[in-house]
Amino acid sequence: MTAFCLESGVLADGRQILYFNTADGAGRASFADKRDLGERARAGHMRHDVLRDEWIAVSAGRNARPQLPVDCPLCPSRDGELTEVPAPDYEVAVFENRFPSFGGAPGESGHTHGIEVSAPATGRCEVVCFSADHDASLVDLPPERVALVVAAQAQRTADLAARGDVEQVFCFENRGVEIGVTLHHPHGQIYGYPYVTPQTSRHLDAARRHRDETGRNLFGDILEAERKGPRVVAANDLWTAFVPYAARWPFEVHLYPNERFADLTELPSAYIEAFAPLYLDVLRRFDAAFPEGRMPYMAGWHQAPVREGRDLAWLRLEIVSNRRAAGKVKFLASSESVMGGFVNDLGPEKAAQILKDAL
Amino acid sequence: MTAFCLESGVLADGRQILYFNTADGAGRASFADKRDLGERARAGHMRHDVLRDEWIAVSAGRNARPQLPVDCPLCPSRDGELTEVPAPDYEVAVFENRFPSFGGAPGESGHTHGIEVSAPATGRCEVVCFSADHDASLVDLPPERVALVVAAQAQRTADLAARGDVEQVFCFENRGVEIGVTLHHPHGQIYGYPYVTPQTSRHLDAARRHRDETGRNLFGDILEAERKGPRVVAANDLWTAFVPYAARWPFEVHLYPNERFADLTELPSAYIEAFAPLYLDVLRRFDAAFPEGRMPYMAGWHQAPVREGRDLAWLRLEIVSNRRAAGKVKFLASSESVMGGFVNDLGPEKAAQILKDAL
Repeated sequence: MTAFCLESGVLADGRQILYFNTADGAGRASFADKRDLGERARAGHMRHDVLRDEWIAVSAGRNARPQLPVDCPLCPSRDGELTEVPAPDYEVAVFENRFPSFGGAPGESGHTHGIEVSAPATGRCEVVCFSADHDASLVDLPPERVALVVAAQAQRTADLAARGDVEQVFCFENRGVEIGVTLHHPHGQIYGYPYVTPQTSRHLDAARRHRDETGRNLFGDILEAERKGPRVVAANDLWTAFVPYAARWPFEVHLYPNERFADLTELPSAYIEAFAPLYLDVLRRFDAAFPEGRMPYMAGWHQAPVREGRDLAWLRLEIVSNRRAAGKVKFLASSESVMGGFVNDLGPEKAAQILKDAL
Repeated sequence: MTAFCLESGVLADGRQILYFNTADGAGRASFADKRDLGERARAGHMRHDVLRDEWIAVSAGRNARPQLPVDCPLCPSRDGELTEVPAPDYEVAVFENRFPSFGGAPGESGHTHGIEVSAPATGRCEVVCFSADHDASLVDLPPERVALVVAAQAQRTADLAARGDVEQVFCFENRGVEIGVTLHHPHGQIYGYPYVTPQTSRHLDAARRHRDETGRNLFGDILEAERKGPRVVAANDLWTAFVPYAARWPFEVHLYPNERFADLTELPSAYIEAFAPLYLDVLRRFDAAFPEGRMPYMAGWHQAPVREGRDLAWLRLEIVSNRRAAGKVKFLASSESVMGGFVNDLGPEKAAQILKDAL
């Protein structure tokens, strides 16, 4: 089921497009991109935040990206409407982001000037179209399609990891205007970061300390504790979905495979096929939690970095929503945004109960 | 100018209220709170996030707080309309938050159950009303009033630091519905955290490494570099306001005193008096940057923790906005919220130029 046929094409400005098809001979890459896109966007650069020892991508070109345009650029090209996808139909399509935070055409070089240190924003940003149907949402798709999306994410992870300039691959989806999506068409994104992200570094530091102290894997211990506890929202033989003990967000669910894999490239087909229906179940619970319908959410895979911590990491998906009550949104205001001090206004057990009762 | 007369009263449920007056004998604390508030909200608890080694406050009682109510609870009590402020007028009033993230009446105790560790959410949350005028904004107030607000913040910092259960004091303001404010009345807040916040820990770790390597203060080196650079937005003899080299937000300005003070309690009156007009100048630039008028913002003081890093910290105010262009808001979506990977879509020099040109 999670096998696929891959076709690769090139967009008018040189960006790569990939079609993930369930059957051979779709011939989608044979459709040429007839747009005049001009020059490809140049990459920005990164600056070192000396107070936090973190990299900040500076990507002024992104500010011009379209916000909820009338003509959807992620629909297939049909009836003379030329979009980012030249083929007249597709199942799952992946292409390089036209407004990338990382990568693009060769950009600025780095420099060091006292404590001011910059580096080229190498890496790669991709868009993953989940369906040609503009009005669908991931939750509406059949499990086979969700499995194809995950298989595509795994292929992209392997491909980006093989580049010299990517240190971590993050596959994610932002859904809902309350989260800031600029396009409604069902899609996710992939960031191939040229650095290991701060959160992943912290998780791996904690896992390393835990292993040194106990000899055990921290994520395995978390999973074992959660599986016995009151916050499991849904589960099957291979996966467990739970609200974590110390959730930051009013709604936050982590989906762990019951066995350790470092990243999607290690995930066996049986796990991908078992993930899809469980994930759809969790998404349906999110959407049914409040009478106003679809929840805004952010969802992404925590994967091991390409070159470090692979013996410690435990692949898992995290889905969070900023809705804290019917009609109310949790904002990350000063305490969270400036100080990193998180306040959960709902409570993890309450959130788990709402999601369990939702269907 | 920053001297004040302090009056202290008690609200109906036992919470403290303080009036900061410019003249003696205002008699504001003599007005009794005639409301029937019932029992005071109990404190929540904190949970240890083992993956990040951070504390998360769980405060289910806060979810009931009013959102943009018709009758403003921060206006003075007048004509039978009873509010959080019993006096019929005030200059600056500070009271304990009715819906606190930290503190309140004694609450749950902590426990340790394997890797699940919790602690009481001690500490204190306060509301700081900047003016009795419901329709004013801080930017509309005279510099003398802003100085009185800062003097009040300094007094509260000293008072909270003297409690045994506060490790860090954060004085801040969230302004604008795009930031999530639930009350329009001009006000700020104070969090007396029972722990040192993650961001402050990171800053102090960086400062410690820098001192070990160079013998110098990191914040002093940042200030020196920025004062020579292209991102200074405004300055006077005692303060410098600049967009930092590696800003995370499209609009982000840091206001440093030109000399090191660990926190507001150390700040001499001359510095408070020089801060007020400069801060108002920066706020006016924010509001003039885009034709749609008032910018949403978060602003807060970075202060030294109560018991550590006081020889390293450098008091400064940070103001950030999530507006990235006219009519467009920057969301902290998956890359920032889940991975901690920040992307600045505007660019620090561009932001500084917009603010410099705004007035």
